[in-house]
Amino acid sequence: MDYFSFSATERRTLPPAVAVSAVAFALRPPAGAVTAPGTVTGGDQTTLWIPLVRRVRPPFKGVWALPGGPLRFDQTLTQAAENTLWETVRHAPAYLEQLYSFGGLDRSGHAQRLVTIAYWALYAEPELAAAQQEDVDNVAWFSADTLPELAFDHADIVDYALWRLRTKTGYAAVAHRFLGETFTLTQLRGVHEAILGARVDPANFRRQALSQGNLIDTGKVESGAKHRPASLYRLRSTS
Amino acid sequence: MDYFSFSATERRTLPPAVAVSAVAFALRPPAGAVTAPGTVTGGDQTTLWIPLVRRVRPPFKGVWALPGGPLRFDQTLTQAAENTLWETVRHAPAYLEQLYSFGGLDRSGHAQRLVTIAYWALYAEPELAAAQQEDVDNVAWFSADTLPELAFDHADIVDYALWRLRTKTGYAAVAHRFLGETFTLTQLRGVHEAILGARVDPANFRRQALSQGNLIDTGKVESGAKHRPASLYRLRSTS
Repeated sequence: MDYFSFSATERRTLPPAVAVSAVAFALRPPAGAVTAPGTVTGGDQTTLWIPLVRRVRPPFKGVWALPGGPLRFDQTLTQAAENTLWETVRHAPAYLEQLYSFGGLDRSGHAQRLVTIAYWALYAEPELAAAQQEDVDNVAWFSADTLPELAFDHADIVDYALWRLRTKTGYAAVAHRFLGETFTLTQLRGVHEAILGARVDPANFRRQALSQGNLIDTGKVESGAKHRPASLYRLRSTS
Repeated sequence: MDYFSFSATERRTLPPAVAVSAVAFALRPPAGAVTAPGTVTGGDQTTLWIPLVRRVRPPFKGVWALPGGPLRFDQTLTQAAENTLWETVRHAPAYLEQLYSFGGLDRSGHAQRLVTIAYWALYAEPELAAAQQEDVDNVAWFSADTLPELAFDHADIVDYALWRLRTKTGYAAVAHRFLGETFTLTQLRGVHEAILGARVDPANFRRQALSQGNLIDTGKVESGAKHRPASLYRLRSTS
């Protein structure tokens, strides 16, 4: 069972093995926020970030890749996704869901074929602020708009995760999970804009958001010395 | 690499291997339709069927299971799902989609752990009528309401597939795929009733179906010598 005793041809004809990969999304707030160690992206609009890991061994040595790795015999799929995110971000995500399994014939190059079961995750601002205190070797956060070249078929996996995030925003509470327990309508609009990659008219957004019936006015306002502090909302519990 | 040279303990600690499983749905029309070889279910309402395969080797020898098997090194995931359905039903489905991956630690008993990537499929009436001419060893169709005991965690996989089918019916064209190119509103209501497992009021269904704007009246009526033949509709193309 020594993998390296097989020739390259033999490796390709081994039964496919299983890996788990994770696409984690967080929001980088506009200018003024603390910059995370290793952050490459710039700009002053709210944007989606994704943490990547620089590969330290072949194949694709030195190339950025999604967090992930081979599934161990004693890990469930979800545990494997949680572990790889913990090792990368040093914090648990606010949301984690299986995305899709990718098993293209050539995705592993000349190595034993790997089928990867991809998960997607969301990090809310409090966890992200804590993560910004950490500096993990060979890990950096990138703007989803300007990702570097990715190893394997990871660019396809990111595209699929972005599609799922965008199509789920309309009918689920995904956008809210990026924020804390309470948030202003302006913050909520920023999340939508970052996910959609487009500007949203503030007045239209306000009317639509309030008409859906899933936002509850907490009666409180945001802290800070503003002239007209904004109302804080929370998401209606669906359980 | 001889699997059987490993002890049971060693097998459990091998890296997990990959399998593909398929939950295929078809509709059994009400009384009067031809009965497929090996059909166990009865009744005279339209119901969902699922094809199962009786296992001929351990584990779970003699127990019914979903069509499926280990992923070959030279098959994509979709090809593996198509192949196992072809071997079981002898026809290609009208619809095939990846469902979810199942990787519970104990799902393979004492054998090497298998992670199975489940697909779900729909067979339309024309393909099913053709399939009814075939008689494949150790294959039978069962009503989704009265499935026998299933091997592994296949009952969980069927439950998940039913949930996906039911939650997708409201907003997608899944129900229409069971039928041919054209269909009557009564046939369409029968599909909805079979998927939901409940009766639907004919007048309400007719009003809602026609108000959604995705049905086009072909101007033709069903063939046969009826006093008031029903209008035939087709689904509006979304491409």
